[in-house]
Amino acid sequence: MVSHMAKYDDTLSACFTALGDPTRRAVLDRLARGPTTVSELAAAHDMALPSFLAHLRKLEAAGLITTAKTGRTRRCALAPGAIAPVRDWLDQQARVWEARLDRFEGHIANLKEEDET
Amino acid sequence: MVSHMAKYDDTLSACFTALGDPTRRAVLDRLARGPTTVSELAAAHDMALPSFLAHLRKLEAAGLITTAKTGRTRRCALAPGAIAPVRDWLDQQARVWEARLDRFEGHIANLKEEDET
Repeated sequence: MVSHMAKYDDTLSACFTALGDPTRRAVLDRLARGPTTVSELAAAHDMALPSFLAHLRKLEAAGLITTAKTGRTRRCALAPGAIAPVRDWLDQQARVWEARLDRFEGHIANLKEEDET
Repeated sequence: MVSHMAKYDDTLSACFTALGDPTRRAVLDRLARGPTTVSELAAAHDMALPSFLAHLRKLEAAGLITTAKTGRTRRCALAPGAIAPVRDWLDQQARVWEARLDRFEGHIANLKEEDET
């Protein structure tokens, strides 16, 4: 049985790993401006088609893009909200970090006050 | 010559790849609460020490943590601000995406207005 937490962890790992490549980030950049075909996406990259398709598959497996075939044309689109878990995790990290800094600053302020009295 | 853009791209790739592993994310989670020793970090993970140290090296190479040795003890700390480029990239993606949705909604509103007049 896979727990809810383990699944969330797998999603985060797949997303972060998918984002760890400049070609895949460029594809997401392009798709943020609207859906397009695999051929048009591939044309922007100086890369053998099978390698480029492997990048698209990684993005799709991570749930960051969706693809759909109509006739002989495959179109890609950004999966809305797919980046949310990744942003949430980073925001949460930043909150813990900032809370720690606040406590530290509070501690320093207390020391100063004690010093002045 | 490596351009500024290429360096930024390398930083993003190293950070995202480093974040794509649950052990490495757990280490960052722990360090967000304050610095600690390698031994204490390792104790929380059921893993051979060399494998665990490889994870720490990846986090350090990505600039996400710093380590410093005092005598026989190596301490690790979160590198402040290291996560900023990653958050900035994601925020920028979200902005482009939301701007596109706004334009789309504006377009729909215009169509409705034309329909009503």
